Amino acid sequence: MPGLPNATEAFVTLVTNPEYGLGAAVLGYKLRAVGTTRATVVMVTETVPETTRAMLAKTWDKVLDVTQLDSKDSDRLAMLKRPELGITFSKLNVWKLNQYKKVVFVDADTMPLSNIDDLFQYEELSACRDAGWPDCFNTGLFVLAPSPDTYKAIMKRACEEGSFDGGDQGLLNAHFSTWSHGDISKHIPFSYNVNPNASYTYLPAYKHFADQVKMVHFLGAVKPWHYQYANGKVQGQNLTEHTRKFLEEWHKVAEMVKQSYYQPTSAAPYVPPMSTGSTKPAAPSSHVVPDDVSSVLSHITAQIKNKEKAKSSMY
Amino acid sequence: MPGLPNATEAFVTLVTNPEYGLGAAVLGYKLRAVGTTRATVVMVTETVPETTRAMLAKTWDKVLDVTQLDSKDSDRLAMLKRPELGITFSKLNVWKLNQYKKVVFVDADTMPLSNIDDLFQYEELSACRDAGWPDCFNTGLFVLAPSPDTYKAIMKRACEEGSFDGGDQGLLNAHFSTWSHGDISKHIPFSYNVNPNASYTYLPAYKHFADQVKMVHFLGAVKPWHYQYANGKVQGQNLTEHTRKFLEEWHKVAEMVKQSYYQPTSAAPYVPPMSTGSTKPAAPSSHVVPDDVSSVLSHITAQIKNKEKAKSSMY
Repeated sequence: MPGLPNATEAFVTLVTNPEYGLGAAVLGYKLRAVGTTRATVVMVTETVPETTRAMLAKTWDKVLDVTQLDSKDSDRLAMLKRPELGITFSKLNVWKLNQYKKVVFVDADTMPLSNIDDLFQYEELSACRDAGWPDCFNTGLFVLAPSPDTYKAIMKRACEEGSFDGGDQGLLNAHFSTWSHGDISKHIPFSYNVNPNASYTYLPAYKHFADQVKMVHFLGAVKPWHYQYANGKVQGQNLTEHTRKFLEEWHKVAEMVKQSYYQPTSAAPYVPPMSTGSTKPAAPSSHVVPDDVSSVLSHITAQIKNKEKAKSSMY
Repeated sequence: MPGLPNATEAFVTLVTNPEYGLGAAVLGYKLRAVGTTRATVVMVTETVPETTRAMLAKTWDKVLDVTQLDSKDSDRLAMLKRPELGITFSKLNVWKLNQYKKVVFVDADTMPLSNIDDLFQYEELSACRDAGWPDCFNTGLFVLAPSPDTYKAIMKRACEEGSFDGGDQGLLNAHFSTWSHGDISKHIPFSYNVNPNASYTYLPAYKHFADQVKMVHFLGAVKPWHYQYANGKVQGQNLTEHTRKFLEEWHKVAEMVKQSYYQPTSAAPYVPPMSTGSTKPAAPSSHVVPDDVSSVLSHITAQIKNKEKAKSSMY
């Protein structure tokens, strides 16, 4: 049963804002739908409002606060010199969860298509090859063994060297640098972390291996929640057939999440989130605002339309 | 010394038309410039005109005719049912070159930046991961041990199953299907087969590993010879800094090849190549037409301009 208090293995994700909150809600729902037997844990930063936390509490076993670092902490001070690494540092908190012997970390913009519990047979650090620079691993999915010592070692590297890509992927590839040509048993098949958006680079392979895809990862700036969805169809041009299929599957689940987990009440006026970097957390609310997700989606849709308008005026 | 008659190891490429002929001329020049001690062999199909063969003879040790298959040959007949595999079948001829114990096959749209002779330490079948679907290998570069038996086995598979991408990469990945998660010593570092055009997928890694790049591979529809080049600069928009650098290096060598290997004579009127699929070979010529490469480049440039014009009118 998921959520057993003495579970030793867990799926973990990270949420830093309401948009990724919806992504994580879909992911949590999907993990249960495909029948995981492991605990599911979502780490949230102080920038995540109460409404999002409440939604997450219904699709994940545990909602854990992270980044409550002491301001006198030397790690924290070092981090402040590299503000761009803030979210990366939040992700590193997964190594502190040593109530679990093994964790599969998955980004909140991923969606499993079938049971992926067999990932727990892999050892730290296992991951899939990155489409783009395939001698790096992609940190949208990785297997780790939580340990405060490892946490400190990675933190130390981050403070001393930074990250070659300004995020967790560069940092973790530098730390686990033997992964590329070391033990091949730590190379998880690419079918567990497939970016449908990248299909144009080698479309025939995407088609050929389509029925082996276990999990999709919506990499890039445009996320599933940025697309309009109505009557079971996603609105969007230049989408390949399988990208459209995965996006529609995501939205189908998002609709279910909204319908199943939001109980209509009299809603307080919704203030859409502006940015995550320096935003103060929203005032705690004792109930779930029913139109939260819809409002976020409308807000984002308007933003995209404005961006597209600005872009098209460049031609 | 390159070209020793009793060499047991060779770099091999394939040329099927004049455009790739120029690519191969640059590649052959570069292989010598970076000091290879192995033989260099270019396989040419019947569609390659004499002028191109003459140019290649000056930058490669051997120019070998391939695809002169007997029309009564059962392999040939099977191939005719799959005309799209014609060029793939030509490439497979490399397994017939059993005068060599080991071969490094390199596509004609590649360019080594430094000596890559250490590739001969790898065993069949070694290759780099494909940026796009990284559990496949990219067949722009691979190490093989020529053998008529292997040739027949791959040919048999091609006739029975075809190729999932319609080319050699799908076929060879299906044949050497254990490569992905088998022996990691057959995984050549990605730095030996880097596609500069794909940089947008993970630009920070391209920058971080830039000084490790051993060979670039100009994947995709737009090849180096499609760009205009003048005064040491390549004309092109939306090129990343390192793509531009590699393209200018390629053109610098192309200029050298043209200046070093073309002797002006009274030229016959030049007829630009139209298509490679069913083109008859050009009439043999006893001399090198001086403006051959320039004319091809002008012709292609005009084609690109027309395409761009047609494309821009779509906005």
